[in-house]
Amino acid sequence: MESLKVGICGLGTVGGGTFDVLTRNAEEIAARIGCRIQVSHIASRRAKPQYELSGLRFSEDVFAVCDDPDVDIVVELIGGTSLARELVSRAISRGKHVVTANKALIAEYGGQLFAEAVANKVTIAFEAAVAGGIPIIGALREGLAANRVHCLAGIINGTTNFILTEMRDKGRDFADVLKEAQALGYAEADPTFDIEGIDAAHKLVILASIAFGIPLQCDKVFNEGIGEIQPIDVHYASELGYNIKHLGLAVRRDQGVELRVHPTLVPKSQLIANVDGVMNAVLVKGDAVGATLYCGAGAGAEPTASSVIADIVHIARSVRNGRAPGVPHLGFANTQAANLPILPIEDIESSYYLRMSAEDKPGVLSQVCQVLSEAGISIEALVQREPQLNESQVPVILLTNIVRERDINSAIAKIHELESIHQQIVKIRLEALG
Amino acid sequence: MESLKVGICGLGTVGGGTFDVLTRNAEEIAARIGCRIQVSHIASRRAKPQYELSGLRFSEDVFAVCDDPDVDIVVELIGGTSLARELVSRAISRGKHVVTANKALIAEYGGQLFAEAVANKVTIAFEAAVAGGIPIIGALREGLAANRVHCLAGIINGTTNFILTEMRDKGRDFADVLKEAQALGYAEADPTFDIEGIDAAHKLVILASIAFGIPLQCDKVFNEGIGEIQPIDVHYASELGYNIKHLGLAVRRDQGVELRVHPTLVPKSQLIANVDGVMNAVLVKGDAVGATLYCGAGAGAEPTASSVIADIVHIARSVRNGRAPGVPHLGFANTQAANLPILPIEDIESSYYLRMSAEDKPGVLSQVCQVLSEAGISIEALVQREPQLNESQVPVILLTNIVRERDINSAIAKIHELESIHQQIVKIRLEALG
Repeated sequence: MESLKVGICGLGTVGGGTFDVLTRNAEEIAARIGCRIQVSHIASRRAKPQYELSGLRFSEDVFAVCDDPDVDIVVELIGGTSLARELVSRAISRGKHVVTANKALIAEYGGQLFAEAVANKVTIAFEAAVAGGIPIIGALREGLAANRVHCLAGIINGTTNFILTEMRDKGRDFADVLKEAQALGYAEADPTFDIEGIDAAHKLVILASIAFGIPLQCDKVFNEGIGEIQPIDVHYASELGYNIKHLGLAVRRDQGVELRVHPTLVPKSQLIANVDGVMNAVLVKGDAVGATLYCGAGAGAEPTASSVIADIVHIARSVRNGRAPGVPHLGFANTQAANLPILPIEDIESSYYLRMSAEDKPGVLSQVCQVLSEAGISIEALVQREPQLNESQVPVILLTNIVRERDINSAIAKIHELESIHQQIVKIRLEALG
Repeated sequence: MESLKVGICGLGTVGGGTFDVLTRNAEEIAARIGCRIQVSHIASRRAKPQYELSGLRFSEDVFAVCDDPDVDIVVELIGGTSLARELVSRAISRGKHVVTANKALIAEYGGQLFAEAVANKVTIAFEAAVAGGIPIIGALREGLAANRVHCLAGIINGTTNFILTEMRDKGRDFADVLKEAQALGYAEADPTFDIEGIDAAHKLVILASIAFGIPLQCDKVFNEGIGEIQPIDVHYASELGYNIKHLGLAVRRDQGVELRVHPTLVPKSQLIANVDGVMNAVLVKGDAVGATLYCGAGAGAEPTASSVIADIVHIARSVRNGRAPGVPHLGFANTQAANLPILPIEDIESSYYLRMSAEDKPGVLSQVCQVLSEAGISIEALVQREPQLNESQVPVILLTNIVRERDINSAIAKIHELESIHQQIVKIRLEALG
């Protein structure tokens, strides 16, 4: 049986997992492709690994892998965007296919890199860049290719999903759970990237590009983290029948596309609202297929390796067939992308959860309702608690119908001017996803 | 822009949906492929359809489509296995690619047809044959190709899922809901194929073949329908924390593969237990990726058309690239299939839900427990109801640990011999899917 040679750059969690799975399932993978996948070269800037390295070259310089004539596919798992970009460019220029799990690299520099790949008749595969082991890139690019996609909604960051799940199930507060997530290895020492939604935004940009045929546009995603979510809001949301999820949302509107990452109330009756802990899920709605949902592990050594190797298999099957893979990088062959602007956040449409602190006296609620009514905003649900002993203020929680963000913001500003409303008004978006 | 010509055989629900979606989304689909998909020929044994047929040939003889030199891809949507088999064979022999939604055809005759296709350097695509719009064939064959699959569990028949959901939510009985399902068009006039699990068995055989690399073996699936499920069992299951789902299960064991379709108690904490109504879902567990779940519409005109067209797109992208698709029909390039026998039902392992009618007198429960204990079967949960007024018998419900089917059967036979146990003992399998 012939073999195809893979060079792995970076031997961290995913690199190690990829090597392990390729080794363990070598027979099964070879049977699927009809040719063996041989890891011929590993590069790691750290010390030499403990792997059995017979017949396998090891370098500390990742570029040595690109330059190795004994490597057909370069697997980029070093992370970051600076060195990784250089590495991928060089591999392409050497006529090698590239597999990467690097969402930041694809989201920020994909456009340029894909053009280089096409010019060099190679492919860059990146199934592992979004939602770990869930084959969502393949589903969007191939399985749902018949559809005009209306919207997609994803739990695409396991760290924030873990934190929100713990907050809900145990009534704990954000800082407390974050500390535990760090201890468990679910969150980085510097968790900014995850909890502020930057990681999710990268993934959303990639998904939206494939779903709608729009260019990768990292700078246009609206981004709100989960750091401000209070246990009390998790509690009230639950009482009203909702779980709070940190969603990436891409929605097609007449005027353009909404691209937004933020905490979101989702009805518990939706399956995606019940995807808990570190699990990921992506809901895609197409005009023909309706709603489809994809769930699985969004991170971790072997789930991510599963997608890295799926890409290797895809390339190997094509190479054996004498061609580069025929699926366009971003799902559309026409490089002239869809003429859809990304809408500013003020122009998006959503329902809203509002929580405010109101003085416990007659007429306050009626004032609030009047402001909303004058703005054309309907109240879908309202909860007002009885004051506890010695409390002069009571929490008022309400859910609105679907309105423009601009309108809810101006209504909130007006409510804030009411004498009997104190403190900041909490606003969390709500998506029925129905 | 060049175009690829499609001939559609059969203009029922799915054929009509395929034509509609291809027409409505023509621009978007062309942009994805880089070439237009043109329906050049439609054949239907019924009267000429209402479609705008300019530039489109219409035949009443489906074989005219195979023989039309102006057709590149034949879409077989006539159903059945006799004429359909002949049609697909002839299309292949004419060097045409085939797309089909026909699960029975693939499950029963796929082996032979795929060999013919390979010999003629064309492909037979069948994403629509399993779980309608859910791209599960693609996920198994490509997205999860790195994995040694441990097991898969699918709700792959919308009719039975609708009936079981209604029975649970409204406490109705089987015959009553079936009548409604027929009125709604969710069940056929002759519902045997769906409710006895034959349809699900066909789909399971296809999924299992791709998951494990085993041949298609329709005759070896164990098959149990939902006709015997009583409202009282749906009720007790729910009380114990389970929903009853009609699952197709394929499980890899040391000795072989379990292939079985039957009603199954699934813990409500599992997402798949909450996939209700006519929706479908497939849970796949791989050694690298862990558990992944795929949900969506399992039938209907446009969801099924979504998968039919995904296959057309897949073929078109390959043809444009100058080759037949490089993905093996059943996911494995090595025709020498895995040496895994299908286990007889007596050799499967499962937990069990048992319901029996016991005389309301001391010592009965202890006798039952003793029989189970002597057979090495543990009781995980037990419910005994107080007798109602004038009742001399009480229902006893128990859940067992995981045991061999042979052992539970012989224990049931022994319990049946007890004087104080009357009526048939109800046995339903239980899968934790954890």
